[in-house]
Amino acid sequence: MARFFMAGSNIRGGTAVIHGRDAEHVHVLRLRPGEDVIICDGEGTDYKCRLVRADREEAEAEVLEVVRCPAEPSVAVTVLCGLPKGERSDYIVQKSVEAGAREILFFQAKRCVAKMENAEKKLDRWQRIAEEAAKQSGRGIIPKVGWAGEFADMLDRAVHTELPLFLYETGEREPLNAVLEANKTTASAAIVTGPEGGFEEYEAKLARIAGLHVCSMGERILRCETAPVVALTALMYATGNLS
Amino acid sequence: MARFFMAGSNIRGGTAVIHGRDAEHVHVLRLRPGEDVIICDGEGTDYKCRLVRADREEAEAEVLEVVRCPAEPSVAVTVLCGLPKGERSDYIVQKSVEAGAREILFFQAKRCVAKMENAEKKLDRWQRIAEEAAKQSGRGIIPKVGWAGEFADMLDRAVHTELPLFLYETGEREPLNAVLEANKTTASAAIVTGPEGGFEEYEAKLARIAGLHVCSMGERILRCETAPVVALTALMYATGNLS
Repeated sequence: MARFFMAGSNIRGGTAVIHGRDAEHVHVLRLRPGEDVIICDGEGTDYKCRLVRADREEAEAEVLEVVRCPAEPSVAVTVLCGLPKGERSDYIVQKSVEAGAREILFFQAKRCVAKMENAEKKLDRWQRIAEEAAKQSGRGIIPKVGWAGEFADMLDRAVHTELPLFLYETGEREPLNAVLEANKTTASAAIVTGPEGGFEEYEAKLARIAGLHVCSMGERILRCETAPVVALTALMYATGNLS
Repeated sequence: MARFFMAGSNIRGGTAVIHGRDAEHVHVLRLRPGEDVIICDGEGTDYKCRLVRADREEAEAEVLEVVRCPAEPSVAVTVLCGLPKGERSDYIVQKSVEAGAREILFFQAKRCVAKMENAEKKLDRWQRIAEEAAKQSGRGIIPKVGWAGEFADMLDRAVHTELPLFLYETGEREPLNAVLEANKTTASAAIVTGPEGGFEEYEAKLARIAGLHVCSMGERILRCETAPVVALTALMYATGNLS
């Protein structure tokens, strides 16, 4: 069913009014009066509606039912990635939204080859990818994409969640599944992954000192764009959000 | 550590001889005598070796230790995907190898838009992607990529595993986590996912009749190239292969 994100203020007294780009989209999809659409307020609530009028500039729909968006996971996950090169960041944004992230932030790690230049343009692009992925996967919010800054700023973000996880490839680590099994009812979590070259040892040490769980995901070395999606999926599975 | 796949026959009496493209690769990486490499026989056994000679045409290494490749999961998973369009198939191959698949096969589903043309060229390309991903992620085998044929041929492949899973978006389904929790020690499994437009209802019915578990992965709609990796990760997590 076609899905639109719209501020709650446009839904009043059992009627939703669809303007602008969304009204055009209704037109392009050739949706006619009598057909059903879902209007999401972007805060996790779905309004199941039936179109009563569909013009190119404006459409109107009657609200049939109001439900909590069933696709929203019970855990709010912030994905924090060392900024990778090229299209890998696009990929991370798209797949993290599909897999259920609440927020995707990039940060500067020691081994980042990429630099955060043209920040505004990049953030715009990532946010558009997130919106597209949110619509397509049936999310109840549009996850925010942003820039977390330096490594220390990233740590600060991570420790403000209940379960901050730092994925690291070598050395002393907790197995990810042991940490997840002990935290099945967590309400919020962070997943921190490195850039192409991984993390420096001192970065892992800093993360441990800050109170993050330094975790292993087995012996297979994952690419920097694969690791966040795999960790996010494991977290969704362990917290009962993948069934 | 640099990793090479080599037939076991080239490793005799404690010495490994590296020829051809791999010898060139040793040269390109500027590996010198005294440095260590891993030579994998492609059947799950790793030979930890120290280079004693490294010429452009041939290198020789002393075997230090023989171990079972730690990256190989305990469960042999066949990923079966309805053939998608364009580069999505490349992506499925690469990510499935990273996530631990034993074998990746594509098949013709009713809603496939793509056709299996230039089969030989496509299979070559996919197999190269699989080899590259296997080296990079530290796998002990090079997963085979192939063409399974029609829907019925795919079903036949799937039912020859202990745990055939058919991921489907609507209707009567078992929750994936319930199925996985009941099969934590399975030795083999199949993961079947659809093309861009998903499966037809009759295809899901056929799968159920054939004995596959028709499963849901929650309310988020995953793209056809995302679903196999998410399902594979859930399976690896549930069977203890992600820690």
